[in-house]
Amino acid sequence: MHITKAVITAAGRNQRTLPMQTLTDRDGAEKSVLGILVEEVISAGIDEIAVVVVPGDEGPYAATVGDHAGRLHFIPQTDPRGYGHAIHCAKPFVGNAPFLHLVGDHLYVSGNTQSCAQQLVAVAKAENCAVSAVQATRENLLPYYGTVGGKRVPGRKDLYEIDTVIEKPTPTEAELRLIVPGLRAGHYLCFFGMHVLTPAVIEILEWQMANGESRMTLSAALAELATREKYLALEEQALRYDVGVKYGLVIAQLALALSGNDREEILTRLVEMLATRELRRGA
Amino acid sequence: MHITKAVITAAGRNQRTLPMQTLTDRDGAEKSVLGILVEEVISAGIDEIAVVVVPGDEGPYAATVGDHAGRLHFIPQTDPRGYGHAIHCAKPFVGNAPFLHLVGDHLYVSGNTQSCAQQLVAVAKAENCAVSAVQATRENLLPYYGTVGGKRVPGRKDLYEIDTVIEKPTPTEAELRLIVPGLRAGHYLCFFGMHVLTPAVIEILEWQMANGESRMTLSAALAELATREKYLALEEQALRYDVGVKYGLVIAQLALALSGNDREEILTRLVEMLATRELRRGA
Repeated sequence: MHITKAVITAAGRNQRTLPMQTLTDRDGAEKSVLGILVEEVISAGIDEIAVVVVPGDEGPYAATVGDHAGRLHFIPQTDPRGYGHAIHCAKPFVGNAPFLHLVGDHLYVSGNTQSCAQQLVAVAKAENCAVSAVQATRENLLPYYGTVGGKRVPGRKDLYEIDTVIEKPTPTEAELRLIVPGLRAGHYLCFFGMHVLTPAVIEILEWQMANGESRMTLSAALAELATREKYLALEEQALRYDVGVKYGLVIAQLALALSGNDREEILTRLVEMLATRELRRGA
Repeated sequence: MHITKAVITAAGRNQRTLPMQTLTDRDGAEKSVLGILVEEVISAGIDEIAVVVVPGDEGPYAATVGDHAGRLHFIPQTDPRGYGHAIHCAKPFVGNAPFLHLVGDHLYVSGNTQSCAQQLVAVAKAENCAVSAVQATRENLLPYYGTVGGKRVPGRKDLYEIDTVIEKPTPTEAELRLIVPGLRAGHYLCFFGMHVLTPAVIEILEWQMANGESRMTLSAALAELATREKYLALEEQALRYDVGVKYGLVIAQLALALSGNDREEILTRLVEMLATRELRRGA
């Protein structure tokens, strides 16, 4: 499988300024959230990148990615018909080829020298199929994520064959259909916000649309995909950070700083700050 | 002295997206940096607010302050002639009245129930003169700030009569001209980024401009002001955070969170994050 294209979705109506927020990356340089995502994609050897946006956001977004602006194709999502529809908007861009997909409101911090996108694309190429990155996630967080069920690929500690996908499952659904042998008790495999998808996914989304689904979800399409094709989940040595939630940006910023070149500096400033607060409270 | 107007300068060429960055304020609500500054001004009972901007930034900035947009007057600074010039651009707005002035790349976290702007405006009204907020600052930070010299107002622990102002003094200049009796050794009174200024300041800036200064500084104008009028410095029970420096936004965000309603939550997440990192490093 040859993967040369990527689609970043950033058309959520209530999170429009997120991709423009500035963070200091692991290398100490200031970048926008979108800029960090674009570099994540490039690290996987992919340089044709589409960004699905609310019409009118093309200019402001392009302005925040510096020299990368030239390689971005902006795709306006004219109707707010949900996340699945946003991906479908990229159909003319991806054509009949597999593609890497990232959501625009997450940041990914790899625990080793390979980036998250690099790890994912390598597995998709080797296994020649769709692969979703997942993270073992505590049961209490199920209301936030698409969750997969399946079984471990023999001989691999980090790879699973997916047979079920449910968007934001209830604890009961999860217990009945999504328990994955080998995970810690009370943990499930939840989407990480990064996938390698095959053209079949676009086709399934189109079918959902033709059948009058008003808000198409990617999870429903991926549930269908699992019945048609080999479809894997990769548990990455990495953490994802949802920057769209309360304090999401600050937590993601700290995670980047603590895993990068400025770890000592940021730890020192945290301790100083906590000490100052306590002194002032005591004063 | 009656203070009804405020001027926020946000026309720094290399910091143009700063006022649009999103932070979670002490009350737990998401706001832009500019939105937080506007509420700081309003807390002092002032609701005519001018923002000096790079031409073209009016729309994007207005979009980030929600319901407050209606009360903002945007003033374009057409030539990048420095900070003093940016303040002078507000001359038609302030007219012949004193005004509160805040820099657009700092955030202010008060250590008591009164906001920083509220404390400053109260002193300016009571003393009927220009007042600059200052913070006792270690000598090694002098290269970043305008610094004042003077002596304590009798009977007041937090108020000083200013006789000298030097922008970014060298340690030698500081030792010779800026030592303030009563401060801890090695500490100086540096600007906090918040002032109540009198019309004389605008007049002095105009004089600088007419005399061919190419980049006008506020500190030079305030040094002149100290020779003409009673001019005080208020050491606030507060800390200022420069959000334009590396990690400035994350440190300011943590300071807001640790001094607000979500203190316990943010401490818990910090400890969790540090523990996770260490576990992963140990793994």
